[in-house]
Amino acid sequence: MTELFKVATVCEARRIIWEECIRQQKIETVPLLEALGRRTAKEILAGDNLPGFTRSTMDGFAVRARDTFGASESLPAYLEIAGEVLMGKEPLGRLEAGKAWRIATGGMLPQGADAVVMVEYTENLDEDTIGVIRPVAPGENLILKGEDVVSGSPVLQPGNRIKAQDLGVLAAAGVTAVEVFCKTRVGIISTGDEIVSPDQKPPPGKVRDINSYSLFGAIIEAGGKPVQYGIAGDDFQRIYGLLALALEDNDIVLLTGGSSVGTKDMAVQAIGSLGKPGVLFHGLAIRPGKPAVGAVVSGKPVFGLPGHPASALVVFYLLIDPLIRLGSYPNEDEDFLEFPICARITRNLRSAPGRDDFVQVRLVNVEGELCAEPVLGKSGLISTLVKANGLARIPAGKEGVQAGEIVRIRLF
Amino acid sequence: MTELFKVATVCEARRIIWEECIRQQKIETVPLLEALGRRTAKEILAGDNLPGFTRSTMDGFAVRARDTFGASESLPAYLEIAGEVLMGKEPLGRLEAGKAWRIATGGMLPQGADAVVMVEYTENLDEDTIGVIRPVAPGENLILKGEDVVSGSPVLQPGNRIKAQDLGVLAAAGVTAVEVFCKTRVGIISTGDEIVSPDQKPPPGKVRDINSYSLFGAIIEAGGKPVQYGIAGDDFQRIYGLLALALEDNDIVLLTGGSSVGTKDMAVQAIGSLGKPGVLFHGLAIRPGKPAVGAVVSGKPVFGLPGHPASALVVFYLLIDPLIRLGSYPNEDEDFLEFPICARITRNLRSAPGRDDFVQVRLVNVEGELCAEPVLGKSGLISTLVKANGLARIPAGKEGVQAGEIVRIRLF
Repeated sequence: MTELFKVATVCEARRIIWEECIRQQKIETVPLLEALGRRTAKEILAGDNLPGFTRSTMDGFAVRARDTFGASESLPAYLEIAGEVLMGKEPLGRLEAGKAWRIATGGMLPQGADAVVMVEYTENLDEDTIGVIRPVAPGENLILKGEDVVSGSPVLQPGNRIKAQDLGVLAAAGVTAVEVFCKTRVGIISTGDEIVSPDQKPPPGKVRDINSYSLFGAIIEAGGKPVQYGIAGDDFQRIYGLLALALEDNDIVLLTGGSSVGTKDMAVQAIGSLGKPGVLFHGLAIRPGKPAVGAVVSGKPVFGLPGHPASALVVFYLLIDPLIRLGSYPNEDEDFLEFPICARITRNLRSAPGRDDFVQVRLVNVEGELCAEPVLGKSGLISTLVKANGLARIPAGKEGVQAGEIVRIRLF
Repeated sequence: MTELFKVATVCEARRIIWEECIRQQKIETVPLLEALGRRTAKEILAGDNLPGFTRSTMDGFAVRARDTFGASESLPAYLEIAGEVLMGKEPLGRLEAGKAWRIATGGMLPQGADAVVMVEYTENLDEDTIGVIRPVAPGENLILKGEDVVSGSPVLQPGNRIKAQDLGVLAAAGVTAVEVFCKTRVGIISTGDEIVSPDQKPPPGKVRDINSYSLFGAIIEAGGKPVQYGIAGDDFQRIYGLLALALEDNDIVLLTGGSSVGTKDMAVQAIGSLGKPGVLFHGLAIRPGKPAVGAVVSGKPVFGLPGHPASALVVFYLLIDPLIRLGSYPNEDEDFLEFPICARITRNLRSAPGRDDFVQVRLVNVEGELCAEPVLGKSGLISTLVKANGLARIPAGKEGVQAGEIVRIRLF
């Protein structure tokens, strides 16, 4: 039995959407250099040991550690230089007792050696002899074969979003093609009789489409593939037709645009007519963003977003961004990463209890301390979106914040 | 006269690189939907007023404010419903004294009206009459023509990295093609006789290339265009030849790979032979990352990066990332955004005074508080790079941090 929330908290909204979702993420294989930002579809195992041989981490001399025991500046251990490890080559022969081989950082430890003495702790007696002035323990200044990654053990977990350093780690493991989830496809439909395309000069009474462009960008930033379906106006049949089309070809569908009651009602009706379970909540306990609508149809999430540009983005970041970025909603003990930055708010802000408030802020440095200046203005303004570079969250439990309090922020 | 620093602080390194840089950023025009993440090359001006007409921000009734003065629940102001504003249409006719027109959020205010009464503050007496139970001031619940952006005023400043919401703002202003700086091209050359390509199975003594892959990713994340020039080995002529080639075709060149003294010396010599002013510092007062080399040749920055993967990334984030992302280095009062996250470190960490230390950390939620667990391990390990999701900075002025202290972090 599906619950219908008239007004849901963000937590409830996530739970009820997620319960009805049937995520079917297709998998594709991409070359390593195209894998940045993609999510791994499977655990990736190391095919070899990393490193594949025991390596020196310092420039110096490969030795038998016990030949250095007790060495000091006053009583150095004298060792004969019996060889040199060439970079990229396997050392030929074996290090004998009382001998040392020159070795550079990254060089392969010769057989018989079990440690490296840093060049700083040696002195040259003559061309063939060094004095070691500090003892080394077995294993010192080495990375052992397989110490970094053991052959067959996981290099990356499934579902990881591949970062810059992960590309390096995959390269190290010899992975030149990566199985990743196909990008989440997100269809965007604009509604509202007052909306015209940005390439048109709007006649009196009309305005250009904003939301399907800012959402387009936000979907790409989250790692998804946005697909614009154009402007449906306030025509029920056209909205319904585009919704059905977008639902067929996408993993998530967003309906956005008009913010009048009439348009909103039509959007809810159209979403509700698409299929089961349909609309799950109608209204979110947040500001801005209250008029959001959440639905699932045939296992796919469909959202009706508020018409005000800032409101639409707030709802996007809370309910849609994680589905694209993480493939699910974060656990409650991980959601701190959604608003990871702490800053001191520079003025008092009121908020009503029982709802999360989101305030556009500008992060500034005040005498070495990170502060957040609220960027205030009437709701529906877009110039504030350019001035702000952060979005501060005032949780439902608080009745506003005082100037000087720490607030949590996501970059915006 | 160019200074040569043997070991430079990050601040000095930035200053001396920047002083010798001659940045020649080409400009191209891209369609709006391809502009995300690009940097605007010029100020972008609004061609029209935004909004182009005075709009209602609420669902309700357009009125003359003075007709509502003194209204209250016990003494409503009675107004005749004389018309309706249709979404997207210019209202025909003029609102007369004592009359009200229905209007929805986003609707165009009719002539004669100067405010909107929210529907919540009206009662229906009959089909043609409302009672207003709260007065409105002139201008209330309206966004005035040009209030958001005045025609001819700047929408975006030059040099801005275009964010999701900026796409929306540009769409609103009718900007369908954007003049942006061409992506900063960054050439990457690997050195070191021990390095083989990731598609090869390394024989004993050799390892696969890591850095040119992690740097490839980091360059894309910063908004640049990476170009790989392959592996030069430890062959001076080949290193020099690839450097000259990469310098010709790129804005910045990175030399990376081998970390042995021999390789490093060869890299420095090759960079120094390229042209004037040449090497500007040799060594950075940071850990990891000390063996970094900074140079400028013919106005273009050239960096020799340490061979250890984490070290190379630290130097990249400090010295190269801002050049790509911002086109310059941040002012000292803006650099807090480079390490914007505050978290409590979970264990004591030592650091030497006089150098900035950077520690890989894993951000975790400990009883509702954001904490940073150091991910420790021998330098040169790559498995730590996968476990960490943050990089904590311990500034030069401090001799380590105590468990429980707040440290500043960038996501990693």
